[in-house]
Amino acid sequence: MPKPRGRHFFANPGPTNIPDSVLRAMDRPSVDFNDPDFVAVYEAAYAGLKRVLRTGQHLFMYNASGHGAWEASLTNLLSPGDTILVLESGYFSDEWANMARSHGLEVQVVAADWRRGVDIADVRRHLAADAAHAIKAVCAVHNETSTGLMLPLPAIRAALDEAGHPALFLVDTISSLGSLEFRMDEWGIDCVVGGSQKGLMLPTGMSFTGVSAKAFAAHASARLHRFYFDWTMMAERSTKSFIGTIPVHIFYGLRESIRLLEEEGLDNVVARHSRLAEATRRAARAWAANDGPRLFCLSPDRCSESVTTVLMPEGCDGDSLRRTVRERFNVSLGGGLSRLSNRVIRIGHLGDLNEPMLLGALAAVEMGLRIEGVPHGRGGVEAAMAYLAA
Amino acid sequence: MPKPRGRHFFANPGPTNIPDSVLRAMDRPSVDFNDPDFVAVYEAAYAGLKRVLRTGQHLFMYNASGHGAWEASLTNLLSPGDTILVLESGYFSDEWANMARSHGLEVQVVAADWRRGVDIADVRRHLAADAAHAIKAVCAVHNETSTGLMLPLPAIRAALDEAGHPALFLVDTISSLGSLEFRMDEWGIDCVVGGSQKGLMLPTGMSFTGVSAKAFAAHASARLHRFYFDWTMMAERSTKSFIGTIPVHIFYGLRESIRLLEEEGLDNVVARHSRLAEATRRAARAWAANDGPRLFCLSPDRCSESVTTVLMPEGCDGDSLRRTVRERFNVSLGGGLSRLSNRVIRIGHLGDLNEPMLLGALAAVEMGLRIEGVPHGRGGVEAAMAYLAA
Amino acid sequence: MPKPRGRHFFANPGPTNIPDSVLRAMDRPSVDFNDPDFVAVYEAAYAGLKRVLRTGQHLFMYNASGHGAWEASLTNLLSPGDTILVLESGYFSDEWANMARSHGLEVQVVAADWRRGVDIADVRRHLAADAAHAIKAVCAVHNETSTGLMLPLPAIRAALDEAGHPALFLVDTISSLGSLEFRMDEWGIDCVVGGSQKGLMLPTGMSFTGVSAKAFAAHASARLHRFYFDWTMMAERSTKSFIGTIPVHIFYGLRESIRLLEEEGLDNVVARHSRLAEATRRAARAWAANDGPRLFCLSPDRCSESVTTVLMPEGCDGDSLRRTVRERFNVSLGGGLSRLSNRVIRIGHLGDLNEPMLLGALAAVEMGLRIEGVPHGRGGVEAAMAYLAA
Amino acid sequence: MPKPRGRHFFANPGPTNIPDSVLRAMDRPSVDFNDPDFVAVYEAAYAGLKRVLRTGQHLFMYNASGHGAWEASLTNLLSPGDTILVLESGYFSDEWANMARSHGLEVQVVAADWRRGVDIADVRRHLAADAAHAIKAVCAVHNETSTGLMLPLPAIRAALDEAGHPALFLVDTISSLGSLEFRMDEWGIDCVVGGSQKGLMLPTGMSFTGVSAKAFAAHASARLHRFYFDWTMMAERSTKSFIGTIPVHIFYGLRESIRLLEEEGLDNVVARHSRLAEATRRAARAWAANDGPRLFCLSPDRCSESVTTVLMPEGCDGDSLRRTVRERFNVSLGGGLSRLSNRVIRIGHLGDLNEPMLLGALAAVEMGLRIEGVPHGRGGVEAAMAYLAA
Repeated sequence: MPKPRGRHFFANPGPTNIPDSVLRAMDRPSVDFNDPDFVAVYEAAYAGLKRVLRTGQHLFMYNASGHGAWEASLTNLLSPGDTILVLESGYFSDEWANMARSHGLEVQVVAADWRRGVDIADVRRHLAADAAHAIKAVCAVHNETSTGLMLPLPAIRAALDEAGHPALFLVDTISSLGSLEFRMDEWGIDCVVGGSQKGLMLPTGMSFTGVSAKAFAAHASARLHRFYFDWTMMAERSTKSFIGTIPVHIFYGLRESIRLLEEEGLDNVVARHSRLAEATRRAARAWAANDGPRLFCLSPDRCSESVTTVLMPEGCDGDSLRRTVRERFNVSLGGGLSRLSNRVIRIGHLGDLNEPMLLGALAAVEMGLRIEGVPHGRGGVEAAMAYLAA
Repeated sequence: MPKPRGRHFFANPGPTNIPDSVLRAMDRPSVDFNDPDFVAVYEAAYAGLKRVLRTGQHLFMYNASGHGAWEASLTNLLSPGDTILVLESGYFSDEWANMARSHGLEVQVVAADWRRGVDIADVRRHLAADAAHAIKAVCAVHNETSTGLMLPLPAIRAALDEAGHPALFLVDTISSLGSLEFRMDEWGIDCVVGGSQKGLMLPTGMSFTGVSAKAFAAHASARLHRFYFDWTMMAERSTKSFIGTIPVHIFYGLRESIRLLEEEGLDNVVARHSRLAEATRRAARAWAANDGPRLFCLSPDRCSESVTTVLMPEGCDGDSLRRTVRERFNVSLGGGLSRLSNRVIRIGHLGDLNEPMLLGALAAVEMGLRIEGVPHGRGGVEAAMAYLAA
Repeated sequence: MPKPRGRHFFANPGPTNIPDSVLRAMDRPSVDFNDPDFVAVYEAAYAGLKRVLRTGQHLFMYNASGHGAWEASLTNLLSPGDTILVLESGYFSDEWANMARSHGLEVQVVAADWRRGVDIADVRRHLAADAAHAIKAVCAVHNETSTGLMLPLPAIRAALDEAGHPALFLVDTISSLGSLEFRMDEWGIDCVVGGSQKGLMLPTGMSFTGVSAKAFAAHASARLHRFYFDWTMMAERSTKSFIGTIPVHIFYGLRESIRLLEEEGLDNVVARHSRLAEATRRAARAWAANDGPRLFCLSPDRCSESVTTVLMPEGCDGDSLRRTVRERFNVSLGGGLSRLSNRVIRIGHLGDLNEPMLLGALAAVEMGLRIEGVPHGRGGVEAAMAYLAA
Repeated sequence: MPKPRGRHFFANPGPTNIPDSVLRAMDRPSVDFNDPDFVAVYEAAYAGLKRVLRTGQHLFMYNASGHGAWEASLTNLLSPGDTILVLESGYFSDEWANMARSHGLEVQVVAADWRRGVDIADVRRHLAADAAHAIKAVCAVHNETSTGLMLPLPAIRAALDEAGHPALFLVDTISSLGSLEFRMDEWGIDCVVGGSQKGLMLPTGMSFTGVSAKAFAAHASARLHRFYFDWTMMAERSTKSFIGTIPVHIFYGLRESIRLLEEEGLDNVVARHSRLAEATRRAARAWAANDGPRLFCLSPDRCSESVTTVLMPEGCDGDSLRRTVRERFNVSLGGGLSRLSNRVIRIGHLGDLNEPMLLGALAAVEMGLRIEGVPHGRGGVEAAMAYLAA
C-alpha cells in the first residue's frame, strides 16, 4: 500500500479541521498561567467564548473532553437519587444517561426513533406526568453527532414553560456550537455543555459549561461529590475556572479561533454550515437512486447542519467503504457508533470548511461507491456543485 | 515599560520548557483517533510512558490536568467513608487531602514541618496504630512542588512492609517523573499520579495513573462515583484509556518527548537534573550570606532535584523580586503558594534545561536581588559556574 | 466580501503545496552552518537531491530562485559573444533567451507554436547548419510552465548525438523535477536547472544546477563574470555549494521532502502526477463541448503532467474566472503569462497533491464557469472522477 | 557524547536568533505572489523595511544572501574597468573587493590594521589623490562581522564631501541594520547592502539594497552584465523587486520582525544592543587578566555593538574552546575567519537577545576557559552582571 500523499481530508464529524493560524498560535513556549501577558489572553478568550455562547451568565472551563463537561453539569447540579429526564437522540444521549446512572441518579428517558428524534409531544407528556417535580433536569443533545439529528431547543424550552415545570434545562452543544445557531440566554438554557474540538476548531482537550443564574443557585445545594469540576471553588478564583494547572496553550488557540469566527461573523458561519450541509444532502439524495445509500435522518427539518449520516444499503459494509476512501483518497469519514456500527457513514461538514474541501470529500465518497460496487445513483457531486454554484 | 525581547526564560517549576521538536510534533492537523496511523502513534507513546514509569502493570490516561488524575486515583480505588493517610509535604499534599474529603473520605494526616517533610518514624507510628487496617491508602507526594522537598519513597514502602499493613501506596509523581529517579514496580507503588507538563516536557492537558495489579484488584470493589475517569470502562477499550474523545495532539508530542528522554537516557536525565539542582543550591548558599535569601529545605537529602525553594529574608517581598526579574530580564520564577505566599521564590530546574539556561536564570535572580536592595551574598552565579565547570 | 474560510486550494503551477511535515521541519531555530549537526543534515539533503536528479556528477546549489540558477548555468559555462540555441516553448524559454542576451551572448531560437513546441526536425536543421560549432549550448525547458507543454529530452539529446554536435545540453527542469520522469545522467544532460518550490515541495528560495563532467570541464574556460554563482569557488568548499551564508532552514525542509519522495518512491510519484494530469485533461475535454474552454496543448504526447493550460473561449476573461474562483471558493489558479495574459487559465497539479485536492479545484473551476456564464460542457468533474475511480 | 539538552544558545554573529513569532509567521502554506492578500503583506513589509533603513528613496530586494546583494550593488552601478575604493576592515571587506575584481573592476584598497580599521585621514588622502575622479564608488563595511569593528559612516561621508569627490558611497550594513544606529538618507549613503539573517531576525535567504536617487541615476549608464539582480527590470514591476518567483514566506516573517522592531522602538533596539555589547566587553576585560583572552578591537569607539571578537592567548586554540562550549553547554560561538582562523572567538550579541541569554552564553565561555585550562581572569560574568544590574 503506497503512502497516501497530499492533504488529509478530515470529513469526520469531530474533532474537526483546525485552521493553520490556530495551530500556529498554539505552537509556542510555556508561560506561567499567572503571567500578566497570559492573563490578558485568557480573559480575551473567556469573554469571546461567552459571546459565542451568547450568554451574559456564568462560564466554567475544564481541562477535559466533552464527557468531562457532562460530568461537571451533573455533579454540580444534582444530588444522589435525583431524577433527570433524558431526550433520546442517539449514542450520545444514551451515554449521558449512562453517566448519570453511574453517579447515582435516576434516569427517565423520552424514547425516540434514532432517525427522527423525540416527539415534542412525548416530552410534554413526561413533564405533565411529573406533577411532584421529581425531575430536576431535562437533558437534550442539540446536535446528535452519532445520528446527524438536531433537536429544536426552543420547542423543548416551550414545553417546560408550558408545563410550568421548574427542572433545569441542560443541553449538549458539543457538535453545534460555532456551527449551528445557538443562543443560550435567549433560549432559556440553564447549563450548556461544549467542547473545543468541533465548531471552535481547536484540538480536543478543553470543555466548558455555560451556567445560568438559576442553575448556579441550584448548584449551592447539589450534593454529588466533586472537586476537579467544582464550580464553587472555580468561582472563587480570579480566572473563574480550572482546578489545578491551567492549560495555557489552548487559550492562545481559542483567542485565535474566536477571532476567526467573529471576523467571518457568527451569522455567516451558520449560513456557511447550512449551505454546505444542503450540498451534502443533495449529493446523498442523488446516491439514493438505484437503492443506494440514503439520508439516515427522516425528519427534514432535523437533519444536522454539521454532520450528515448516510445509511448504507442492506448488505453493504460502511467500514469497508470508509477504508477504501481513506486508503485510496486520503479522506477520513466517520463510522457508525453503537447499534449503527458499520451500517452508516457519517460525513462531517463543520468547522473550518469550504466548498472545494467538501466537494473533494464527496467526490471521494462517490468514487468509493463505484470502487466498492455499492449500488448507487450517479451525480451526487454534480448535484452538490449545481446547488453551490447557484 | 518597553516590551521584553529575546527568549522568555521559564524558570518556573511547572509547566516547564517544551522542546521545539515536541511543539512541532503537536503542530499538525486533526486525525481520527481510530485512524491506523494514529493508533500506531498512540501505542508507541503508551508503551514508552510505561517504560518511563518503569512499570509493566496498568496505565490509564486522562484528558485532564494532574488534579484530574488525583481524582481518578481516589474514586477508582476507594468507597464512601474509607480512610486514607496523607503524608504532609506542602500545599499539594494538603490539596490532595482536601479533594479526598470532598469525595466523602476520612483523611488522617501525618503532620510535618514544610521545611523538613514527614519523619518516617511518624509514618510508622500511624500505621502501627491502625491495627484494624482502617487505612485503605497511604498518599505521598514524591516531589512537593510548593516546598521543593522530596520524600524517600522506598523508606515509606519499607514502613508499610514492616508494619505488614495492606494499605495501597499512592504517589504523586507529577513534578518528579522524567526528572528524578522513579521506579514504580521496584518501589512497590500501587498508584502513581503523573502529568504531561513537567518532566515529560509537554503542554498541560494530559495526566495519567500507573496502577498495580493489587490496586486494579481493589478497584473492582471501589464504590465512589465515577465515569469520566473510570478504569473499568477504559480497560474494555482497545486503547486502554480515555472516556470520550482522545486528545490526539498530545500523543504526537508524547511520542517525541519519550524519544528525547530515551535518546538522552533516563539515567542521564536524572544525573542532569541532579547536577543543575546542586548548582542552584550552591548559588542559594552564596546568597545566604549577609542574612540573604536561603534554602527553604532544611533536610539536605530531601532538597528537590527539580525545584529549589528559596526563603526571602524577613521583610523582603518575594513577589516584588519576581516582578522585577520578569520585567527587566524576561525570566519567570515561581512564587509562594498558600502560607508561603510572597515569602519564597521557587526556581524550577526541570525538563528541557541546560547549564546556560539555568545560569541565565540564576544571574537574573542575583541581579534582581541587587536591584531590589535585598541583602544577600554575592557570587551565587560564580559558585554555580565553579561547580558546573568542575 | 466575507473572508474565505477553510483551506486555501493552491492549484497554481508554482510555487506549490508544501507538506506540513516540510513546513514544520523548517520551523526551527537558527544553527551555525558549520555546526556538525547541520553539516549532517546538509550532506543528507545534498546526496538525496542528487538521487532525485538521478546524477552521480556535480551539484551546485544557490540561495536564489530558478532565475538565479539560470544565470549560474550561463555565466559558469559561457564566454562573452558565445552563441546558444534556445528551443522555444513559451514565456520561460523566451526569458532564458533574454537573460542570455543581457549577459552578452548571441541567441539563436528554434521557433515554435506555443501550443505544440518545437519540431525536433527543426532542431536537427539548426544543428546541421552549424558546421563550425559556433553553438556552445542548446537550452530546452523540460516542462514549460507557461504553456503546459513538455519537450522530449531524449529526442533532443539524440538530435545532438546524430549531428555529432559538441554543444552542451542545458535543461530547465524547474517544473518537472519531482513530478515528471527525469534522468540527468542517462539522458546526457550537461546542466540541469532546478528550484525548490515545485516538485520538491519547498518554499521558493533555493535553486541548483546539476552539472556533468563535460560541463564542469567547459566551465574552466568560461569567461563571463560571476562570483555569487561561481562553481570554482564552490567546488573548493567542503559543502560544494554557496558563496556566502548557507540558508540552513531550507535544508531541514529538503531532507524531509526527499524523505517523502523516496518513501512514496520516485516512480510512484511520477505515476501519481500522470494520473492526476489525465484526470484534469478529461475534465478539460468535457468542458470543451459547447465551444467551451479547451486544452491549450495541441500535441497529445506533450501535454504537461504537472500543469494543464486551458484556453478560454474567445471573448471570455480568464482573470475574471480566476477571481471568482478565488473569492467564492478559496481556490487559486494560475493565469496567462505574456502573450497569453487573460486568455488562459493554468491548473497546477504538481507536488503534494491527491485526488480530492484536485477534484475540489476542478469543481471550483466548473462552478466558476457556471457563475461567470462561460459557455462550457458539463460533467468535467464527473469525467475526472470516472477516470480516477477506474 | 550524550546529546545536549535544553535550548541551543546561538551566540554566533550571524545568522542570529529568530523570534518564535517570526518562525510561526513563516510556517504557512504557499500563496500566489500575485494574490491580493500576499500583495498587502508584501507592501507592508517593503514599506517597513524602508523605515528601518531610514530611507525614502529606492529599495530593491533579492532572493539571495548578502553576497548576492553585494553583486547587485556592483553590477547595477558600475561598468567594466571602473575603479572602486574599498576601506579595509576585515574578511568581508576583502571579499567584497575580490568580488569586484571578478567582475572586471579595478580595486584600490585603503589598507588598515584589522584591530583598528582604516584611518579616516588615509581615506581623505586616497580621495585627494584621485583628482581625475577615477574612483566611481567607495565601499565600506559598517560593522565588520569578522573583526568586530565598526566604521564611522558619517566621518567617511564627510571625507567625500570635503574632497568634493563625486564617487558613490556604498555601505554593507549586513550585521548592523536593526542592531546599530543606521540612517541611510541622513548619512548620505548611495547604496546600502543588507540581509535578512541578522538584525532583521529572519532566516538567511533575502537580501536587499537601498539605493539613492543619485545611485539610481548612475545605474542608467552602468554596463556590467546582470539580469537576476537588474534594477531596471525590477523598477518596472509593481512589486519593485525580484526577477523570477518572489519568495513569499520571508515576507510573512519580515512583516512580523518589523512589527517587533517597531513595537520595541528602533532607538530602544539600538540601546539594548549597546547595553549588551558593553556587558560583553566588561566580561572580556575581566578575562584579560593573567594574560587571558582580550578584546581584539583596539579602538574603543569602534568596538562593535553587535559582535565582540576576543583574541585568544598565544598558543591557545579558539576552535577547541568553541567545541568544548558547544558540546558541554550547547552554546554556539563564532570562530575566526581567514587569517584569524582559530586565533579568536566571536561572541554574537545581536537580534532577539536579552540579558539572561547573553549571560548564559558568557557563563559558558567562562566555564569553557576553566575546562580548557586557558589562563584567564575570573569574574567576567560577575562584571557583566554588575553592569547590567546598575
